[in-house]
Amino acid sequence: MTDYPPFGAGLWHFASYVDRYATDGYAPEVSTLEQIARAGSVGELSYVDVPYPFSEGVSVDDVKQALADNGLQAIGVTPEIYMRRFSKGAFTNPDPEVRAAALAALNEAADVVRALEAKYLKVWPGQDGWDYPLQVNHHEQWELAVSGMRELAQANPDIKIVIEYKPREPRNKMFWDSAAKTALGIKAMGVDNVGVLLDFGHALFGGESPAAAAQLLIDHDLLWAMDVNDNLRSWDDDMVVGTVHPIELFEYFYTLKINGWEGVWQLDQFPFREDTVEAAKLSIRFLKAIWRSLEQLDIEALKAAQARQDALGAQRLVQDVLFANIRDEA
Amino acid sequence: MTDYPPFGAGLWHFASYVDRYATDGYAPEVSTLEQIARAGSVGELSYVDVPYPFSEGVSVDDVKQALADNGLQAIGVTPEIYMRRFSKGAFTNPDPEVRAAALAALNEAADVVRALEAKYLKVWPGQDGWDYPLQVNHHEQWELAVSGMRELAQANPDIKIVIEYKPREPRNKMFWDSAAKTALGIKAMGVDNVGVLLDFGHALFGGESPAAAAQLLIDHDLLWAMDVNDNLRSWDDDMVVGTVHPIELFEYFYTLKINGWEGVWQLDQFPFREDTVEAAKLSIRFLKAIWRSLEQLDIEALKAAQARQDALGAQRLVQDVLFANIRDEA
Amino acid sequence: MTDYPPFGAGLWHFASYVDRYATDGYAPEVSTLEQIARAGSVGELSYVDVPYPFSEGVSVDDVKQALADNGLQAIGVTPEIYMRRFSKGAFTNPDPEVRAAALAALNEAADVVRALEAKYLKVWPGQDGWDYPLQVNHHEQWELAVSGMRELAQANPDIKIVIEYKPREPRNKMFWDSAAKTALGIKAMGVDNVGVLLDFGHALFGGESPAAAAQLLIDHDLLWAMDVNDNLRSWDDDMVVGTVHPIELFEYFYTLKINGWEGVWQLDQFPFREDTVEAAKLSIRFLKAIWRSLEQLDIEALKAAQARQDALGAQRLVQDVLFANIRDEA
Amino acid sequence: MTDYPPFGAGLWHFASYVDRYATDGYAPEVSTLEQIARAGSVGELSYVDVPYPFSEGVSVDDVKQALADNGLQAIGVTPEIYMRRFSKGAFTNPDPEVRAAALAALNEAADVVRALEAKYLKVWPGQDGWDYPLQVNHHEQWELAVSGMRELAQANPDIKIVIEYKPREPRNKMFWDSAAKTALGIKAMGVDNVGVLLDFGHALFGGESPAAAAQLLIDHDLLWAMDVNDNLRSWDDDMVVGTVHPIELFEYFYTLKINGWEGVWQLDQFPFREDTVEAAKLSIRFLKAIWRSLEQLDIEALKAAQARQDALGAQRLVQDVLFANIRDEA
Repeated sequence: MTDYPPFGAGLWHFASYVDRYATDGYAPEVSTLEQIARAGSVGELSYVDVPYPFSEGVSVDDVKQALADNGLQAIGVTPEIYMRRFSKGAFTNPDPEVRAAALAALNEAADVVRALEAKYLKVWPGQDGWDYPLQVNHHEQWELAVSGMRELAQANPDIKIVIEYKPREPRNKMFWDSAAKTALGIKAMGVDNVGVLLDFGHALFGGESPAAAAQLLIDHDLLWAMDVNDNLRSWDDDMVVGTVHPIELFEYFYTLKINGWEGVWQLDQFPFREDTVEAAKLSIRFLKAIWRSLEQLDIEALKAAQARQDALGAQRLVQDVLFANIRDEA
Repeated sequence: MTDYPPFGAGLWHFASYVDRYATDGYAPEVSTLEQIARAGSVGELSYVDVPYPFSEGVSVDDVKQALADNGLQAIGVTPEIYMRRFSKGAFTNPDPEVRAAALAALNEAADVVRALEAKYLKVWPGQDGWDYPLQVNHHEQWELAVSGMRELAQANPDIKIVIEYKPREPRNKMFWDSAAKTALGIKAMGVDNVGVLLDFGHALFGGESPAAAAQLLIDHDLLWAMDVNDNLRSWDDDMVVGTVHPIELFEYFYTLKINGWEGVWQLDQFPFREDTVEAAKLSIRFLKAIWRSLEQLDIEALKAAQARQDALGAQRLVQDVLFANIRDEA
Repeated sequence: MTDYPPFGAGLWHFASYVDRYATDGYAPEVSTLEQIARAGSVGELSYVDVPYPFSEGVSVDDVKQALADNGLQAIGVTPEIYMRRFSKGAFTNPDPEVRAAALAALNEAADVVRALEAKYLKVWPGQDGWDYPLQVNHHEQWELAVSGMRELAQANPDIKIVIEYKPREPRNKMFWDSAAKTALGIKAMGVDNVGVLLDFGHALFGGESPAAAAQLLIDHDLLWAMDVNDNLRSWDDDMVVGTVHPIELFEYFYTLKINGWEGVWQLDQFPFREDTVEAAKLSIRFLKAIWRSLEQLDIEALKAAQARQDALGAQRLVQDVLFANIRDEA
Repeated sequence: MTDYPPFGAGLWHFASYVDRYATDGYAPEVSTLEQIARAGSVGELSYVDVPYPFSEGVSVDDVKQALADNGLQAIGVTPEIYMRRFSKGAFTNPDPEVRAAALAALNEAADVVRALEAKYLKVWPGQDGWDYPLQVNHHEQWELAVSGMRELAQANPDIKIVIEYKPREPRNKMFWDSAAKTALGIKAMGVDNVGVLLDFGHALFGGESPAAAAQLLIDHDLLWAMDVNDNLRSWDDDMVVGTVHPIELFEYFYTLKINGWEGVWQLDQFPFREDTVEAAKLSIRFLKAIWRSLEQLDIEALKAAQARQDALGAQRLVQDVLFANIRDEA
């Protein structure tokens, strides 16, 4: 029997969504507890990343109980520091009061990490950045972004913090926008409890090779968490994993494997118009196929092909295990 | 005194917005009537494009009165055929009942066009398209998109209808995605009351030259309306006009001018984090500068430069009138 | 035994290449006759598309003989109307003398089509377009592009002509840039011997769905030829087919199949740093796997999923036949 | 009288070019000495960046003399480590012999830096990277790229070395692809004679804000040189500066100014189809206009607007000085 890795998902995978057009939402609202129940019904998930604050009236104890009832653990807590109040930024907001409010919200979320015994506080400052040329002083943005994160880290030395970078959206340009910039900023913080959550789709969207981004972060001891999805490369579409870019996905997990990276294989998807539970099931099915194909891969042969930059040879080896009907007929 | 063209704006320019992250909205909600009042306060606008349905409790007569009070006319009416019910499409929805509902909503909006004595019904089927490879039968999409629009046109022979195309969003791929495809589809309809509303930013985002798209539509007698804004080319950012791509904007208005195109210079902007009235004022100020610079342009010289594909000469002529400090010092 | 379609390749697949940096070429030059020998050595190819003029000293008879010796037929002839003389365009060159020279070169190539008994004259006017905003009059470009092609078609009524569109390169913007624009232009020509050669990678690069582009052209009776390759979506990388976007490739061939399109499956690849014969072999191996997977596909089920826009169901059906290790374990 | 900065250009600005289509070149070849003469004839240039090796038969002394004759100085020397031999990489080539050859070529170029008394050795390893998913081991690429550059730096402690990063081309993905990654890699080298040459267009092409990239490098003491041009954002088009993105260009030079950055304003343009001297003249004319507009800018007001992320206010201030006809009529 195959020994799969643990699977997880952001709890928002099971929510409903709005956008700037369908302001009535793509489906009726789904409460935090219902989202947990849906996650449980997938039957394959061990972990969820929990947004905070919860739905109105839901307590930390309610969430703990619901997680336990559904056989789930919190891998992380994601504070919603991208709502109206933070629309010009959390850490880099020009208003010191808003920055203080952001820090307060983050510290409160850190308490939820402790309460849920989660592995990390996930920080995605999606509104930190800019929209227009000339709008910000870039030196100042760096100072605020780095010093704010340092302050948060120092205030919570018992907690691991992971930054999730992304090129843009909702700001036209997000401050933490690539693996390299995030690594550079974390080094400048001089703390040891800040790492990176790498989102496969964000790397793809940003023109990175997700595998190269993973390797860079591993080599800097910063790849502390990751999630997967897919997109059409020009936007963070948060589509179901494997539906567009299976080969780069395979390379990504291959890179994790040869580095001995062991962690949760998480989903970060927004199934706007799909059944959210079915979307998760199809995703896990695909990830398992990737896992099994990786087990069949001739890793030494692939390493040898890469050592000579033999693109055709490397692709052939991976095609052999990834695709059906690929081997020559008898 | 300069005789400017009439200016206009989509009424949503003065609304507040949500997106998938800031679900509490970037600002408190703004009712249809308040939006009209804000449009009026810009002091430069003659026309607005009015989304329909209006805010709850607002009647057509209310809107007429508010427009009159603010010195505005409705240039068009935009039915919201991109809300939840239509999330898998309006014209191309797989469910015939939803298609019928879309048609009913469009016909109802046509009545509002009549009541407001607007110039056109604007149709932006933002949910018509697809998200995933393999999701749709592309032959069927064309059939539904073209026949549905034909049916709408034939049901409203007294009304002009304009299609606004856009490459994507909210669907990962929108059916009406370019000037050429829209022109091709309109020809296939075989009706004479369907044309195009060209959005400068959509063309830019789609990799078109907005000027070339305008010329193509003019040459097919289909450029019936247009609006402007700006973006970073990779998304429909709906930024304030002139803030990123002033030269292509100049080329665009130059193209309209040499073709004798006379119509309203409209704004289609989403100032998420900005004062919406100030955003409109800055936009109109810029458009006036474009207008005045066009009046100073040596058009014959530019035509001569283009006739020999002299890119440097053409740019020099336009720089001479568009930029300050450009002429050589004495 | 599987009855595969005929396979083909552009002869340039077996050439060597230069670019603006490696001006000494990625490999020593390969003559037309050597290219044919290499194509023959793939062992899977039935057709080649032959650039014209040939290498110095090579006659049409030489080419005929070499093709016969290698078991190959010419599917098309591609005149090189993108060399220095045509750097500001062939059909749309501002200089009437250069336009006349282009037409002469095209007519000469038509004679080679006749001599080689090829199926079509392939026209790829890669220098027709513009580089800079303001450089050209777009009305004039359309007139020249359409009337020039009409003139060519009328001068060669016995020959089929296919236009290959592409968004850009080497011009910053190419005139024939999308399926819809090319269809629109061909309709304006009013001739019946001009169609389209659809390049999978050009569609992908241009933000089209290749499958949707194929369907559009089929529905307009214009899909007369096609070739495949792959890229990273933002450029015409002409990579080996199947190495990046296998799912959209599958959708593409699925679309051809359900439309009963029967033609040559051609390669248009530039293996700059790879063994060109090995690149072709790996490509054909992949295309055969696509073919066999298509034979296993439950087409009725896929049609039913598409009829309800069931993205997950559609993907599941295709994953079942395309990927190894995808079906659930016992 | 205005006291402009010194202007410069890459000597290749005055060359002729080939690409993979126009293999006969866009113009007849131009020798190194003729390129210098053309640079001199611009009448505004003080510096050139000199590719090495020179044209056949041209010695260092010839170049020195030609530079002197034309009133020019060498700002840098650019070794051509992107020709056929290095097509799979210079520093990261899989073949140790080729890596050794690259290092030898670089050391030889360092001697030319000394001979010409240039300010730096410019290293642009355009073939270092990869083309295909799965082609390389990304850990190994980092090791080779960083250690190779360190070795070069340590072998030439008297010479400043600048790395020019770029997202891609000619490799589908270049190793040194962003400001942040380059800064991260230079830190890992542990040497003090390696910095960055920032190319405005490369930043724009890579989705960076050029101004933000400049600030990041300044804050890390790494912005040692820079050049400008323009493009359509999706490729390194190397167009004439100011022809597409004047506002981001203004922001870029504003950023240099407020940081007190004093250096040469260089051009890195490829005028494929234009007169190369005229292209330089138009460029310098535009850069002077930027300079003068910057002198008129109310810097304190702009800083204040940025301190509150006031995009509209910031744009208004810059429009006031950058555009003609912008101020309200009397």
